[in-house]
Amino acid sequence: MNADPGPITVGVVLFPGFNLLDVFGPVELLGMLDDRAAIRLLAESPGPIESDAGPAAVADTALAEGGKLDVLLVPGGAGTRREVSNSAFLLELKRHSDRAHRVASVCTGSALLAKAGILDGRNATSNKRAFAWAVSQGPKVNWIASARWVEDGKFFTSSGVAAGMDMALGLIAQLFGRDTSLAVAQRAEYEWHEDKGWDPFAHMNGLV
Amino acid sequence: MNADPGPITVGVVLFPGFNLLDVFGPVELLGMLDDRAAIRLLAESPGPIESDAGPAAVADTALAEGGKLDVLLVPGGAGTRREVSNSAFLLELKRHSDRAHRVASVCTGSALLAKAGILDGRNATSNKRAFAWAVSQGPKVNWIASARWVEDGKFFTSSGVAAGMDMALGLIAQLFGRDTSLAVAQRAEYEWHEDKGWDPFAHMNGLV
Repeated sequence: MNADPGPITVGVVLFPGFNLLDVFGPVELLGMLDDRAAIRLLAESPGPIESDAGPAAVADTALAEGGKLDVLLVPGGAGTRREVSNSAFLLELKRHSDRAHRVASVCTGSALLAKAGILDGRNATSNKRAFAWAVSQGPKVNWIASARWVEDGKFFTSSGVAAGMDMALGLIAQLFGRDTSLAVAQRAEYEWHEDKGWDPFAHMNGLV
Repeated sequence: MNADPGPITVGVVLFPGFNLLDVFGPVELLGMLDDRAAIRLLAESPGPIESDAGPAAVADTALAEGGKLDVLLVPGGAGTRREVSNSAFLLELKRHSDRAHRVASVCTGSALLAKAGILDGRNATSNKRAFAWAVSQGPKVNWIASARWVEDGKFFTSSGVAAGMDMALGLIAQLFGRDTSLAVAQRAEYEWHEDKGWDPFAHMNGLV
C-alpha cells in the first residue's frame, strides 16, 4: 500500500460507440472513493456521446482542454474500430498518457493505446473475443493472452468489459490500499476477482 | 426456457442521482441481445440526467410518453431518497408497471416500487446497506434480507449495485433461455452468480 495520494483526478475518454460497462463499471467503483476522486468524462467535443448499445453519456470536458490527469481511463467498444484511424484523437491520448500518473484501459481500449504507440515494449492485455485485432494494432506490445488484467509500470490494461471492474479495484488498491478496495467492493456488492491471473475467458475463446 | 419472445422493449427509468452501475450493468447485458432488445432511457423530462457519481446519461423518452414496455427497469442511487416523495413520478412507475410484462429493480430501486405500492404482498429484496430504509418504504412487502435477487411473478428485484447484473442475466434466462444468458456473460467476460440465494453481503452487513 502506498501513502494516500489525496484527491485524484480521473479522466475517462468517451468516443462514439464506446462500451457502457467499460466506462461505468470502473467509474462507479472509483466514484465510491467519494471526495478522494474527481471524475471527468472527456471527448473530442463535449456533449452527448452515443455508446455502442445506443444510450448516450455526456462528456463534460474537451480532450484538448483537459488538464493533467492522475488517472487516464480508456474504454473499448465497437467504436474503437474507427478511432484507431483517428490520428488527432490518438495524439490526444498520447499527450494525456505521457503526463498521467496512471493509464488504464478496459477491453479494446488497449488497442487504442497500442495504436497510439503508448504501450510499445509494455505487457498488456485486451478483450478475448477481439484479441487478434487488438494485437494487430500494436506489434511492439508484449500481449498477454490469459490475464484478468495486466499491470506494467503505470499501465493497467484489462480484459473485456466486466474485467474493467476488477482492474479498477486493483488500481484503487495500488493508490489507496487493499482495504479501500475491499470496502468499495462491499459497498457495490461486487465480488472482486483479486487474482490478476484469473481468466476463464481466455480458455473459452481458445486463446490458451 | 420459454419460447423466444422476439424483440423486446426495455425501458430504464432515470432520475437525478440515479446509480450508474445499477443502470449500465443491466443495460450492457441486455444490449448484448442485439436486435432482440430495444433499450430506452426514460425520465420525467428527456435530456441529460446527472447520476449520483456526477456523470450524466441522456434520457431519450418522457416517462409520460413512453408506450407499453416489455421490461421496466428501475435503478437505485442516492436520488431515491428524494423520489420516494415525488408522487407524480411514483404514479408513472405504477402506470408503466401495471402494463409491463416484467418489472425489475436494482438496489434501492425496489424502495421506489414499494413506495408506489407496486410490490405489496410480493417477495422482494434491496441494497444491503440501505435495507432498513427500503423496508420502511413498503410495510406490506415481504422483504427477503438474504438473496442476490428475488423473483416473484413478473417482479425481479435485486440487491445492491453489482447484483443487478446477476439479476439481468436471470431475467434474460427466463425470457430467452439459460444458454443465451451464458453466451451474454461470456461475451461480457462476466462471471454470473447464477444462484439467486448467493449473498455474502447480507452477512457482511449484519442482516443474517
